[in-house]
Amino acid sequence: MILLRHELGEVLREIRQDQGRTLRDVASTSSVSLGYLSELERGTKEASSELLSAVCAGLGLQLSEVLGLVQERVERVETFAAPVSLPVPAREADTVSASAA
Amino acid sequence: MILLRHELGEVLREIRQDQGRTLRDVASTSSVSLGYLSELERGTKEASSELLSAVCAGLGLQLSEVLGLVQERVERVETFAAPVSLPVPAREADTVSASAA
Repeated sequence: MILLRHELGEVLREIRQDQGRTLRDVASTSSVSLGYLSELERGTKEASSELLSAVCAGLGLQLSEVLGLVQERVERVETFAAPVSLPVPAREADTVSASAA
Repeated sequence: MILLRHELGEVLREIRQDQGRTLRDVASTSSVSLGYLSELERGTKEASSELLSAVCAGLGLQLSEVLGLVQERVERVETFAAPVSLPVPAREADTVSASAA
């Protein structure tokens, strides 16, 4: 199961690192605690809507810009995580049927 | 401040209504409680990542598809909510200054 908080956390960290900023700096400009921001980035805490908006503002981005990056990331993960059908050799299928019978 | 849970709730309700389904039906296929789904749609509760994924599956959509709709909606709201500079007539501005003084 793909979890929004994991993908959101990765995106928030990527944006911050691309800006060459520290957790402490972004936490300070967003008025959220360092520990909270760190947990968001690690995907271990769900972001409340209020604090997510504050962090976006602290990163100098609109909420829609961050959501766009999250959407793209989730789409990539979904593609990667999609089940792949591999052809099953006839003999192996027979063996499975036999042992199941 | 634009809040993700409000916009997400509107999107989830729109999708469900477009599908002509009841809250009870979607709650049942998503294995979430009716009350929880109702609160999500009204934007009064934050969605946990696990339950959001369950609701997307119950609606027959990928998480990325729902996020795409939320992103578009938030973008529209941001545009609508952006401050607009209107020219202030000189006389009115004087009145405001005078009453404030």
